Amino acid sequence: MGKKIKKIGVMTSGGDAPGMNAAIRAVVRTCAYYNIECVGIYRGYQGMIDADFVKLDARSVNNIINRGGTILKSSRSAEFKTKEGRAKAYENIKNAEIDGLILIGGDGTFTGGMVFYNEFKVPCIGIPGTIDNDIFGTNYTIGYDTALNTVIEVIDKIRDTASSHNRLFFVEVMGRDAGFIALNAGVGAGAEEILIPEEDLGLDRLLESLKRSKRSGKSSSIVVVTEGDKIGKSVFELANYVEENLQQYEVRVSVLGHMQRGGSPSCFDRVLASRLGVKSVELLLDGKSNLMVGLTNNKVTTTLLDKAVKGRHEINMELIRVSDIMSI
Amino acid sequence: MGKKIKKIGVMTSGGDAPGMNAAIRAVVRTCAYYNIECVGIYRGYQGMIDADFVKLDARSVNNIINRGGTILKSSRSAEFKTKEGRAKAYENIKNAEIDGLILIGGDGTFTGGMVFYNEFKVPCIGIPGTIDNDIFGTNYTIGYDTALNTVIEVIDKIRDTASSHNRLFFVEVMGRDAGFIALNAGVGAGAEEILIPEEDLGLDRLLESLKRSKRSGKSSSIVVVTEGDKIGKSVFELANYVEENLQQYEVRVSVLGHMQRGGSPSCFDRVLASRLGVKSVELLLDGKSNLMVGLTNNKVTTTLLDKAVKGRHEINMELIRVSDIMSI
Amino acid sequence: MGKKIKKIGVMTSGGDAPGMNAAIRAVVRTCAYYNIECVGIYRGYQGMIDADFVKLDARSVNNIINRGGTILKSSRSAEFKTKEGRAKAYENIKNAEIDGLILIGGDGTFTGGMVFYNEFKVPCIGIPGTIDNDIFGTNYTIGYDTALNTVIEVIDKIRDTASSHNRLFFVEVMGRDAGFIALNAGVGAGAEEILIPEEDLGLDRLLESLKRSKRSGKSSSIVVVTEGDKIGKSVFELANYVEENLQQYEVRVSVLGHMQRGGSPSCFDRVLASRLGVKSVELLLDGKSNLMVGLTNNKVTTTLLDKAVKGRHEINMELIRVSDIMSI
Amino acid sequence: MGKKIKKIGVMTSGGDAPGMNAAIRAVVRTCAYYNIECVGIYRGYQGMIDADFVKLDARSVNNIINRGGTILKSSRSAEFKTKEGRAKAYENIKNAEIDGLILIGGDGTFTGGMVFYNEFKVPCIGIPGTIDNDIFGTNYTIGYDTALNTVIEVIDKIRDTASSHNRLFFVEVMGRDAGFIALNAGVGAGAEEILIPEEDLGLDRLLESLKRSKRSGKSSSIVVVTEGDKIGKSVFELANYVEENLQQYEVRVSVLGHMQRGGSPSCFDRVLASRLGVKSVELLLDGKSNLMVGLTNNKVTTTLLDKAVKGRHEINMELIRVSDIMSI
Repeated sequence: MGKKIKKIGVMTSGGDAPGMNAAIRAVVRTCAYYNIECVGIYRGYQGMIDADFVKLDARSVNNIINRGGTILKSSRSAEFKTKEGRAKAYENIKNAEIDGLILIGGDGTFTGGMVFYNEFKVPCIGIPGTIDNDIFGTNYTIGYDTALNTVIEVIDKIRDTASSHNRLFFVEVMGRDAGFIALNAGVGAGAEEILIPEEDLGLDRLLESLKRSKRSGKSSSIVVVTEGDKIGKSVFELANYVEENLQQYEVRVSVLGHMQRGGSPSCFDRVLASRLGVKSVELLLDGKSNLMVGLTNNKVTTTLLDKAVKGRHEINMELIRVSDIMSI
Repeated sequence: MGKKIKKIGVMTSGGDAPGMNAAIRAVVRTCAYYNIECVGIYRGYQGMIDADFVKLDARSVNNIINRGGTILKSSRSAEFKTKEGRAKAYENIKNAEIDGLILIGGDGTFTGGMVFYNEFKVPCIGIPGTIDNDIFGTNYTIGYDTALNTVIEVIDKIRDTASSHNRLFFVEVMGRDAGFIALNAGVGAGAEEILIPEEDLGLDRLLESLKRSKRSGKSSSIVVVTEGDKIGKSVFELANYVEENLQQYEVRVSVLGHMQRGGSPSCFDRVLASRLGVKSVELLLDGKSNLMVGLTNNKVTTTLLDKAVKGRHEINMELIRVSDIMSI
Repeated sequence: MGKKIKKIGVMTSGGDAPGMNAAIRAVVRTCAYYNIECVGIYRGYQGMIDADFVKLDARSVNNIINRGGTILKSSRSAEFKTKEGRAKAYENIKNAEIDGLILIGGDGTFTGGMVFYNEFKVPCIGIPGTIDNDIFGTNYTIGYDTALNTVIEVIDKIRDTASSHNRLFFVEVMGRDAGFIALNAGVGAGAEEILIPEEDLGLDRLLESLKRSKRSGKSSSIVVVTEGDKIGKSVFELANYVEENLQQYEVRVSVLGHMQRGGSPSCFDRVLASRLGVKSVELLLDGKSNLMVGLTNNKVTTTLLDKAVKGRHEINMELIRVSDIMSI
Repeated sequence: MGKKIKKIGVMTSGGDAPGMNAAIRAVVRTCAYYNIECVGIYRGYQGMIDADFVKLDARSVNNIINRGGTILKSSRSAEFKTKEGRAKAYENIKNAEIDGLILIGGDGTFTGGMVFYNEFKVPCIGIPGTIDNDIFGTNYTIGYDTALNTVIEVIDKIRDTASSHNRLFFVEVMGRDAGFIALNAGVGAGAEEILIPEEDLGLDRLLESLKRSKRSGKSSSIVVVTEGDKIGKSVFELANYVEENLQQYEVRVSVLGHMQRGGSPSCFDRVLASRLGVKSVELLLDGKSNLMVGLTNNKVTTTLLDKAVKGRHEINMELIRVSDIMSI
């Protein structure tokens, strides 16, 4: 067990996600509750290197639970990947008398924390914050539920115009290498087909399915595609290919892009962030380190950071079957 | 095991909830997928008595996944509680050659289904659809997640004006005898206090807490109250009591009311409704009856209707602790 | 003409309205554009008395254009209605070297500005900010368009449940003594009847209309009522009266309340606030005082504060006719 | 004056826009009010050629006022541009005993109506429905206000992530050859720069402005670009150019696309559509033809279809100045 924790540093790192502010608020308020100090570190590891710190008390985080983005800002730091960078960061952490770190982000963020711990023994706890839901050790990452709602609201709008004009839309959503957003938002939005990295549908089956869908009386269709889907074509090439080979619909493409990262967090994400924020502080106070907090079967659980980074959060194959049945 | 299922009837009954249409759609499409017929029964058990039926095919449920309310309408039927009423209903079911029933609703709906099964052996499967989340055998009922988002969006708006005017707001939310909505939406909205039937805070502690909150520098506050909370006072009496005894805030009341039942369902509710809808049909096809489908630890599960009705879905006490810490 | 303006004070006063922050931002940025200083006065006239001031530069108002409420907070000040209160306020204004005032609010706010000008010759310009739209000299007040959208979104939700259960809902909206919100949101939400202070429908005609509506095949109905409507009954009494005398619908009441004042402003309100904010500063710089800026026929116009306060913004009677035709 | 009108046909044509359903509802209900028949023509002029008609009564348009898209669907018809196509269409109109037409759409729709009138003397009235607001003879087209709100809500989300990461975003919005959406949504979203076809900013001034903005302390920026802006570069080329030449921000692009056409209409658009729908029927009943209804200075007005098509709706140059001041 390490020394007694009297001051905790909290940061957000990597891609931002809705609910990060709710997590920051929870960390800060839990520190206040246990009468320990809390320091915000701006711009993730880069702010650690630049000693870009701010003292946070319970009132500093008023009225942020409902805001998208992160008041602590985020970045990816190349300098922190160097030994010199990390040494500078440690110097600043030591000078600021920070005894433990709470790292809100994804794989890259957690890896940074582990390396830093190995070198300087600063205890750290990770909170999974990313819209992609691609982290092992939690059923849900903070921001994912909000992103799903953002995506279906946009597809609902696209469907208005798709069905008014009998069009076929290809909608590209985020997800890095994981189909969580595409599969869940696809089912939620009533998409006819969903292309995810975890399952290679193949162009022929896609065409066949769209033809069947047309025959069955559907006048418009939505296909949801994960960015960087492994089908070997960009969403625009895919759309062209389908338009040429199907010749039954006008085809249009919509790339949703960064709007998926923003917006006021859903209730689910705010509650999740609050629960994980409380637990993360309590783990540090209990002398723990190198753990990620997560939600497994509706309970707050912990996973070794190492496992969280190396493991793979598998997609729910049952949902693929549901999607197939729904698109009849 | 009963006879082979060739035609399924589906109804919504009791209070409506967002996502009921998504569940209807899933039932109808799954029937189409398995090449069995599907009949919509209007206005719940009353429509069964009135033979108010409609044939539904895969295309009948286009573009309803995103709509609030229920296209099959809902009601509470006094007549179905009589033997004569149920006999009439059975006559109609028999004439329509309906072999199994899918009942979307809550406790009352499921009880009706069990009584009907006992008398006439028409197999039935229940799908939990209610915003209150007060059903045993599922972590989430359909409509609950949407209602939470509706509530926090409204409280976010109320907080705008509360903090502009340094006011204290009492916000009454739905929940029948359960604090799920109040507790989760309260944490999500950053409420200072949350009054739920499961925990008697007491007026003195409420006052004490609000005083402490004021001392700690909060200029405005939100208190979320479950309708019919057992504190023994209406939300208006409560507000008056606090205003007189606290004399530090202008106090206002907002009763959210029926808007909580409406609106386009969240992605979570649409996906949940789709999964439960598929499973409910498959259970009937497998010869099952008197089961409720639900989501337990992210998996689709079944519970005896009898247990679902008699059991009590317990609130998460950890969240009460989170709420206390957050309101520091 | 007064002395050269080098420092402007800006405040929000009276009931808050969405878009007030966009107006503050526009005032602050316009000051920066013209290289003059800008001071925010907290809590309206009370903050003037308490010397509760804050220096605002162009960056102070980053990321507030989309926020409801007012960062300067608002209040109603009894003390400012006394000669002593105003004398204190003037002392503070003089000490802070504020040469002109921009007052964002409604009638009461403008009256205060005129009295203050008469006594101390501090030039002032009014910006109409209130959701009620009851100000003479502008077609639209800041916040009104947003409130309309808030109201119809809620009524859309209520209609989901109303039509699922064949119910009649009475929905009470804000408006002080003016029916702008009720009439426009009522038409926008497709209400069957709209009760506004400007037109006494009478209980008999209301009943007659609802009966006709039921006969015509409508299964559910919405009646929008302005708070304090002169029909001589509260919305609850009204609902009871109709339920007893109509006996065709279950009747429910929803009082929308303060949520109507909050929320992120609509594009219309943000643009309106930006235009009026720019103009208000330019008028002060031009040596003007005692004017209200407004939007008349899509152009920024000015009205004497005195006329703005004494005049009456008349409701559009054509819209009542449209409403009657639509509810056939 | 033509013969007495006993049956009116209504259609939507060209790009769909939110509020078209509200306009259809208003036309149908006004017909019912005046006891004349109403026929819906599906898919615009193509449906006229295909005799794709549907009888509409007051109840047919229940619960559509809040829906995006158009229940009558829309299309662009090449066949109607031929004499043969129009002759077929006339045959169908005559057989269906339709005495007058109400055309909801834009320039192309109105031109079709005029040609048809010249050949067959079927009276027609145009209702401006397009998100682009590029129609002469009305201050607002139906759908424009909703599109503005859609755009600013998305940009608010993008700003969350932009400011979390100190990025510069180029956001492309719709508008055909007109900058209405870009200019108004740009001001509403607090964009730093707005590129519209009506004003050639030039790349140098854009760079200069963004540099100044960075120097002034802004850490993130949004540039709104009209699709097909005449700056001679696609939004992606523009972004690359700026990234290379500015080297102060990470630059990202977001193309909003078709989502701008969908969604539930704003209150403004629903009220506008209702007012124009009523007037359009009354004009036909008064024996008028070849007029477009519109909203000018808050009053319902009429313009010759010929003028509406040939005229140019000029953008408000004052707003460009407001935008410049705001981006200081």
